[in-house]
Amino acid sequence: MKRHWNFLESRVAYQNRIVEVREETYRFVPNGIVQDFTVLGFADWVNIIPITPDEKVVMIRQYRLGTRSETLEIPGGLISEDDTDPAEAALREMIEETGYHSDEVVHIGTVEPNPAIQNNRCYTYLACNAVPVSGQSLDPTEAIEVELVDRKDIPALIRTSCITHGLVLAAFAHLMIYEASSNL
Amino acid sequence: MKRHWNFLESRVAYQNRIVEVREETYRFVPNGIVQDFTVLGFADWVNIIPITPDEKVVMIRQYRLGTRSETLEIPGGLISEDDTDPAEAALREMIEETGYHSDEVVHIGTVEPNPAIQNNRCYTYLACNAVPVSGQSLDPTEAIEVELVDRKDIPALIRTSCITHGLVLAAFAHLMIYEASSNL
Repeated sequence: MKRHWNFLESRVAYQNRIVEVREETYRFVPNGIVQDFTVLGFADWVNIIPITPDEKVVMIRQYRLGTRSETLEIPGGLISEDDTDPAEAALREMIEETGYHSDEVVHIGTVEPNPAIQNNRCYTYLACNAVPVSGQSLDPTEAIEVELVDRKDIPALIRTSCITHGLVLAAFAHLMIYEASSNL
Repeated sequence: MKRHWNFLESRVAYQNRIVEVREETYRFVPNGIVQDFTVLGFADWVNIIPITPDEKVVMIRQYRLGTRSETLEIPGGLISEDDTDPAEAALREMIEETGYHSDEVVHIGTVEPNPAIQNNRCYTYLACNAVPVSGQSLDPTEAIEVELVDRKDIPALIRTSCITHGLVLAAFAHLMIYEASSNL
């Protein structure tokens, strides 16, 4: 497939600490039409599925301001400048948000949250043999409840809309496929 | 769990036809700290997995400007003001982007693309017995190639990063779970 768009220009229309809104202009090669697009620039993200030795998924419950509702999620967040790689960021977020540690972290997939309008990636990990070692390490304005969920209940929680976060569903899709291929 | 944030104010910092960037201020109830957040306001989205009578998934390949790369996706898009409901929007997008029709469209899940920073939902459908009836109906600047994929190859395409779109992975997670529960 041909690359149908030639880049003409980009300007930052808005910027804060989490997002850069860019207005970009491209020319459509087949007919020369010039069109503007909006691209949202973000840092890359990570998320991680911690599973305990007795097959519980270590999930977190918190109030989310985007949807103004409570969500049930897996740990995750931004890759910070101090992280040497995405795996370290994922492990750090897991430890901070849950107090669980793991010495067996496996990369199970990488997702583009929305390639139509976002530039970033989300790296997804599985943390095997996750065990509680420390307390949570939260910012003064974080209220995160740890919730252990039987792994076999995950599909029902998704089906009944108790788990709705798109990137969490994508992570569980990667987990299902990773495990099916590991069992071949 | 208590609702930990009290809303104080919201202002639109940037707006165009696809996104409204809002700067919102909340007070954290437990300690009174006042904090600003960014919320991205979007219309609701839809996506749809069309499956033919011979078990092919009708996918689309296109160049995406967010990641500046080609993607393999399922049909989808915005719910427009002319759509009476999300199912109609999903069917319309499928017909426009692929020329395939279906008279058996089933809602298999609803996703929040990113509840931390976005307000919107993505409604996901399965279109059974999808058959080619018309040509594509594309805008002058859309270049979308239809690609029939053996349904059994989807997990391998996800595992090998040929399918990376987060909302497409979430849709396939819903499909896997929907089918497993239908087979009980």
